[in-house]
Amino acid sequence: MHRFHKLDKMTSTRCAVCKYFRRRCPPDCIFAPYFPNDNPQRFTCVHRFYGASNIGKMLEEMPVQLRADAVESLYYEAKCRIQDPVYGCVGIITSLHRQIQIAQSQLAKAQAEISFLDANFVGVEPTSSLSESLVQQNGVEHDLDDPFSTWFY
Amino acid sequence: MHRFHKLDKMTSTRCAVCKYFRRRCPPDCIFAPYFPNDNPQRFTCVHRFYGASNIGKMLEEMPVQLRADAVESLYYEAKCRIQDPVYGCVGIITSLHRQIQIAQSQLAKAQAEISFLDANFVGVEPTSSLSESLVQQNGVEHDLDDPFSTWFY
Repeated sequence: MHRFHKLDKMTSTRCAVCKYFRRRCPPDCIFAPYFPNDNPQRFTCVHRFYGASNIGKMLEEMPVQLRADAVESLYYEAKCRIQDPVYGCVGIITSLHRQIQIAQSQLAKAQAEISFLDANFVGVEPTSSLSESLVQQNGVEHDLDDPFSTWFY
Repeated sequence: MHRFHKLDKMTSTRCAVCKYFRRRCPPDCIFAPYFPNDNPQRFTCVHRFYGASNIGKMLEEMPVQLRADAVESLYYEAKCRIQDPVYGCVGIITSLHRQIQIAQSQLAKAQAEISFLDANFVGVEPTSSLSESLVQQNGVEHDLDDPFSTWFY
């Protein structure tokens, strides 16, 4: 009777990772804070692509306060890979790069339109300050944050 | 002498994955086309995060013509994770989303400026066609391609 009670307690308190591997969940389990018992799908999703061992290694190598964010980003990447098995997250990055290119092109056209209208403007005082501040702010192309010198495709 | 010759041949033709695991590389090796012998770093990079077994499973589950792209995207994600162990690719996605928001805000300002200048325009013929086509093209916010209903953070 006592043994059953102990087993029940162990089962109910172990994290999703230890539950998956049917093992005891130690008090200092590296997975427990990020893979709670009530969300087993979260672990199976990242485990499918990275494997528990690799996730454990990654977590061990970083400060405790950053681990929750790291698991969140791995979970996000894994969900992307499920949705798009070939391109995963990289498909989203490619799409966002295209959107920035479109926005930059639209902005360049708008600036040309403003310059044209500005040159033919006769009404109240010249709007040079407004137009100039706009041109100064339009530095989107310098903000591109690509960690590699060449883009994926 | 004959044995050495055979061993040499096997060693020189096996792919980076089979070389890493010190095993014979079969003629139908699933890794060989994507992990050539002359670039072992490419495999060690993806192996560190995904593991050879998971990569093999992913490749098996997709058509042959898409496998090269899949390996390329996994390699890209792995390089991102090396550079940014906490956020990986997701850090880039967040940064690109911010850039699109900035570009959208700049575009909205430019449109307001155009509307103002247009209303006070006296010069050649009205530029309604130019301005209208610009407004029609400015649909960046509808192009956002986020596969999940809520954004990461």
